[in-house]
Amino acid sequence: MQGEIITIGNELMSGRTMDLNAWYAAGRLTASGLVVTRITTVGDDPEKLSTALREALTHSQFVIITGGLGSTEDDITNEIVADTLNRPLSLDKEMLEQIKLYVEARGIEMSASLEKMAWMPRDARVLKPDGNVCGFSLVEGPVRLYFLPGVPDQMRFLMDECVLPDILSHSKTLPVLRHRVIKIYGLNEPAVAEILKKLPDRSEKIVLGFYPRFPENHITLSLRGHDEPTVTLELDAMEKEIRNLVGAYVFASGNDSMEAVVGRMLKKRGMTLSVAESCTGGLIGNRLTNVPGSSDYFQGGVVVYSNQSKVDLLSVPAEMIERWGAVSDPVVRQMAEGVRERFKTDLGIAVTGIAGPEGGSPEKPVGTVYIGLAAEEKTVSRKYRFWGTRKQVKLNSAVMALDWVRRYFHGDSFLSGF
Amino acid sequence: MQGEIITIGNELMSGRTMDLNAWYAAGRLTASGLVVTRITTVGDDPEKLSTALREALTHSQFVIITGGLGSTEDDITNEIVADTLNRPLSLDKEMLEQIKLYVEARGIEMSASLEKMAWMPRDARVLKPDGNVCGFSLVEGPVRLYFLPGVPDQMRFLMDECVLPDILSHSKTLPVLRHRVIKIYGLNEPAVAEILKKLPDRSEKIVLGFYPRFPENHITLSLRGHDEPTVTLELDAMEKEIRNLVGAYVFASGNDSMEAVVGRMLKKRGMTLSVAESCTGGLIGNRLTNVPGSSDYFQGGVVVYSNQSKVDLLSVPAEMIERWGAVSDPVVRQMAEGVRERFKTDLGIAVTGIAGPEGGSPEKPVGTVYIGLAAEEKTVSRKYRFWGTRKQVKLNSAVMALDWVRRYFHGDSFLSGF
Repeated sequence: MQGEIITIGNELMSGRTMDLNAWYAAGRLTASGLVVTRITTVGDDPEKLSTALREALTHSQFVIITGGLGSTEDDITNEIVADTLNRPLSLDKEMLEQIKLYVEARGIEMSASLEKMAWMPRDARVLKPDGNVCGFSLVEGPVRLYFLPGVPDQMRFLMDECVLPDILSHSKTLPVLRHRVIKIYGLNEPAVAEILKKLPDRSEKIVLGFYPRFPENHITLSLRGHDEPTVTLELDAMEKEIRNLVGAYVFASGNDSMEAVVGRMLKKRGMTLSVAESCTGGLIGNRLTNVPGSSDYFQGGVVVYSNQSKVDLLSVPAEMIERWGAVSDPVVRQMAEGVRERFKTDLGIAVTGIAGPEGGSPEKPVGTVYIGLAAEEKTVSRKYRFWGTRKQVKLNSAVMALDWVRRYFHGDSFLSGF
Repeated sequence: MQGEIITIGNELMSGRTMDLNAWYAAGRLTASGLVVTRITTVGDDPEKLSTALREALTHSQFVIITGGLGSTEDDITNEIVADTLNRPLSLDKEMLEQIKLYVEARGIEMSASLEKMAWMPRDARVLKPDGNVCGFSLVEGPVRLYFLPGVPDQMRFLMDECVLPDILSHSKTLPVLRHRVIKIYGLNEPAVAEILKKLPDRSEKIVLGFYPRFPENHITLSLRGHDEPTVTLELDAMEKEIRNLVGAYVFASGNDSMEAVVGRMLKKRGMTLSVAESCTGGLIGNRLTNVPGSSDYFQGGVVVYSNQSKVDLLSVPAEMIERWGAVSDPVVRQMAEGVRERFKTDLGIAVTGIAGPEGGSPEKPVGTVYIGLAAEEKTVSRKYRFWGTRKQVKLNSAVMALDWVRRYFHGDSFLSGF
């Protein structure tokens, strides 16, 4: 089955926003065994949108359209669809009810511009998998059209929950499609690409994808087949091969985040964690607490951004900072031990470094980061040199610190000294 | 002058690669005062490319085409252009010479597939600003076509060095184009949309855009004109009108973030800040430290995720937590005062709440958040009810806490009690 994608928005035509929706839709459709033949992007412009719609109808079996469904003046999709396909707008009661429930629950007043969103082209079918996010679909002769909001999260949700299943239910491809994501941290992109080349007996049917997600790298496997058990077995075999090649750099497969993996490890063992953050400024705590239920193992932490706070809150001796600097091995060790003591946790992790753009020196250039992990048995520390912007240095430091906890439980390499 | 962009490549259709070239070209053209009316992406597919070319020729004064110029089998652009525009390929000696020099300098052997790149459509003009990177241009009736390599660095270089100057030398559009972003926090989308409708004397020439960026809302203004001072004056006037309508909910214009605005306010007054975070888990500290130089005013903070740590680190009485709960007005006030004392800062802000999805109760449902601000004169606190996912509740709480500092200096409404 062949189809097209149309994305709508002045912000895409002006280069203000990157077209994440086209990219996501193309990736998901391709991974599902469908073929995308064209992506068209137009501004909030009636004539251009109408032309794009008409052209897509002559070439495709499905068309995904994103953007222009909101309540503001430049949201013109419904109107243009009505005109172009000769399907007059009428007030859809189901959609209106939906909008009313949504705004009431949020204490927003109903308005004419919000009601506008409920005026739908004739025979439109509302897509609303969870009662919060809405889009609609139309069948125009042999072509299925799907209209989705331009907000990336909403678009992705509807794409996965409604659009893909609907297209696939009308396609004659093999009925079972499964994806798997293998998440890697600590190897750079060329290294991952080289590893992928080494895959023996690479199954022709498994579609491999490679998605750098700084500072992680993700490999995706997609396979279509006749039945669930066979597909799962083949994916398991391929995942095993990849894990053999990549080793402990694989930290998760599926939807797991680093902090979820670490959290599960702590919870399973009934252990607790605290963090002492300098250059990451709270990012590690923020990541840990993004996981529901993290209060079971995460006790808290300190953000010791000033030297004085390192002394006051973590008992780092002032002379130590004076002699070695706040970004140094002795300080990170004391930070890890200090936070562990103060919060009375099983593990204490600490990060101190120079995130930039200022503050670097020849001996300690921007990107110099020390990480420390204190446990009952021992304290381990190490120096890193990270690259990139201030935010990238912070992010890499935070993920590396979390990865240390994972590797601690994994009994890994330099942390196996425990 | 209006034009289109066509990007070519199977990797774009499969979602393996994000379309950085279309994004770059659109941004550069728009910033140069030109209008992009459509972006079309096709795979390495003769028929689709030919159709896209023909369609673009009927609508545009210029067309930028990227990709398919290389030496591999799937590089089909030259051939398709020759067929579609009826301009037979012939060996371009200048281009051949160019390629020979290039490969010799790199110790590569000349081959038939490399020579293929020198077979150009009739009357093609080679673009080679520095003798390394090559593309070509064609004039087809009233339309100027530019063919560029798909490698982003090369494409960008040719775009800036050759394509933009050439288009601008033939364009009659107004030379100056300026954008402005006005950032709003604390008003929901429908409220912002309603306010935009009220704009008096809305200049037809100023293009308004509205971009929700949870939890912020951004309004963009774009204006084209003859000279910088006039354009700036008109944008200033419109910004003033919007600020009058929206009031103190406007927290920044331009590229400023909330944390940068707050940071500048603190720095200007030589004042310092510390934060006590419960449900935000470190997010406020993380945001504050994303700003370079934030160590000038941000001393640090504590993440008191457990009740015990609220007692130990911030001197919150255990009986207070027992009586009112950790998510309560007395506790947030003590947290703010406690962190201010511990870090010896001018201001202390505190957040405690229920981010969900678990932990809510009928009296204190998920999304209940208390914010407190302690200064020398006084401590102020307030209860909020935020909506959305765990991450959204955290984000809204963090931005609201930062906004309190802004409003404190602003001398605003409920914080004016100071």
